[in-house]
Amino acid sequence: MSLIVVGTMAFDAIETPFAKTDRIVGGSATYVAYAASNFIQPIQQISIVGFDFPKEEMEALKSRGVELEGVKVVPDKKSFFWSGRYHMDMNSRDTLVTDLNVLLDFDPVVPPSYQSAEFLMLGNLDPKIQMSVIRQMKTRPRLIVMDTMNFWMESTMPELEEVLKMVDVLMLNDSEARQLSAQFSLVKAAKEILKMGPKYLIIKKGEHGALLFHGDQVFFAPALPLEEVFDPTGAGDTFAGGFMGHIARTKDISFDNMKTGIIVGSAMASFCVEKFGPQRLKEITRADIDTRIQQFVDLVNFDIELV
Amino acid sequence: MSLIVVGTMAFDAIETPFAKTDRIVGGSATYVAYAASNFIQPIQQISIVGFDFPKEEMEALKSRGVELEGVKVVPDKKSFFWSGRYHMDMNSRDTLVTDLNVLLDFDPVVPPSYQSAEFLMLGNLDPKIQMSVIRQMKTRPRLIVMDTMNFWMESTMPELEEVLKMVDVLMLNDSEARQLSAQFSLVKAAKEILKMGPKYLIIKKGEHGALLFHGDQVFFAPALPLEEVFDPTGAGDTFAGGFMGHIARTKDISFDNMKTGIIVGSAMASFCVEKFGPQRLKEITRADIDTRIQQFVDLVNFDIELV
Repeated sequence: MSLIVVGTMAFDAIETPFAKTDRIVGGSATYVAYAASNFIQPIQQISIVGFDFPKEEMEALKSRGVELEGVKVVPDKKSFFWSGRYHMDMNSRDTLVTDLNVLLDFDPVVPPSYQSAEFLMLGNLDPKIQMSVIRQMKTRPRLIVMDTMNFWMESTMPELEEVLKMVDVLMLNDSEARQLSAQFSLVKAAKEILKMGPKYLIIKKGEHGALLFHGDQVFFAPALPLEEVFDPTGAGDTFAGGFMGHIARTKDISFDNMKTGIIVGSAMASFCVEKFGPQRLKEITRADIDTRIQQFVDLVNFDIELV
Repeated sequence: MSLIVVGTMAFDAIETPFAKTDRIVGGSATYVAYAASNFIQPIQQISIVGFDFPKEEMEALKSRGVELEGVKVVPDKKSFFWSGRYHMDMNSRDTLVTDLNVLLDFDPVVPPSYQSAEFLMLGNLDPKIQMSVIRQMKTRPRLIVMDTMNFWMESTMPELEEVLKMVDVLMLNDSEARQLSAQFSLVKAAKEILKMGPKYLIIKKGEHGALLFHGDQVFFAPALPLEEVFDPTGAGDTFAGGFMGHIARTKDISFDNMKTGIIVGSAMASFCVEKFGPQRLKEITRADIDTRIQQFVDLVNFDIELV
């Protein structure tokens, strides 16, 4: 009943209008694993790192039930590095540096011990890599969720279209949904995207929350209104980790349970943005998570008696 | 147990990327009255119009329980006229024409028959006019709600600050909340604004929903995800009308009931944007409203069992 997480484990250097980091640990699979491991263990990680990725970080992940057999360590290359600067609204950012390094050689091999996994989370990667992982699974996982981004729509659309037919749930942000569908209205965009393969679509709107579409059904979860967003890096991956962790824990892949997964994901993302990198995710306890989820209940809960 | 509505009754000419109107009926008090009259009658209207305001519109309002004793008709002047053009995202617009006409002479007199009103909705107007209406009330209404806009923050801030001390609920949009508070974070903006007088603050975020703040409590209601937004004109006033109509019907001014009022307001606003002007508001039935409110329940409702 495990969860496979495929994605990057990397370094980021982040500038916001209020603060700045040197190189810190990041990467989509790192955030997914830190978030999901609160709900489900083991997590079976698939990634690639260079000689420079910290041993302590590997140990920290292991201690949270993250199996690293599928993480290739390349002894003579550096880990993937990204550097970016956020604008005042924290919703938009400029990329300053992208050093692919080991990511150029990423050709993941699914270890035999991962073969029975029921849940598969494909972080934002080249659709060819996402497809390769799905094809290596001898038994199709019960639920395959993927993230993607505008870069792949522009550079490798045929492969993206192919992998979209192989997954159950697609996650992307609002501008990516508009780009993929060529529709401005998110409701129309969802209709178009659901024709491309996935049965479920999650559109992430950052501080404006997230939408889940399935057939004619729609669910909306707000982001928690926060006094400060310190660093939004990894919030989308943390959301994915909370969502997948909840689904894998409950083993329930119904629309109704996905709604709850989205609330759990939103709660996890609201922690992520409170400090640089995955720092805050390492600190929080189950009690913190329960309290935060209760805040979401209070935020949207109302009684109504129809007129 | 009536509701007084103060605001404009006017003409608008609207251009969107998809369609265009000639001069049609509009004005904040018109939208508030059409929305609120689904929930509470009578509505005691205070406004000013010129010789050109259509008799049929006055009759249509009367037939919905809107009393017009407080609406001054100026025989030799034209009604207020606004013309604007929406951008592609329907969230921003340019004003093309503003002809104040009768609005220059607006010095409202509260008729004696309105004196027992329990609820007072002050549409976006010069704070001096809003203040004058409050001062004319011999018994303070149980709940005073006001709307405002950036123009008054820039031109008549001392008067705006004075009227803010006299009201219970302030409604404004997100950019206006940021301007009034000089805070970018809406949570921080709310804290600052709640120090200025109102005990409740509603921040309208258009397609991104609305927030209600009171002390340390916060409630969020989404906007209904729509395939098309045909014309957003009047959506904010329609929201206000639905909110006030619900509060006046239930006579319950608690935070919990305001949450429900915000859902009702959001439901009414979702109708308003479906056609030009208040047209759609004239067509809908109680059954339509109930169905729409149920869609909001389905949109945000989830079950959760804490981990």
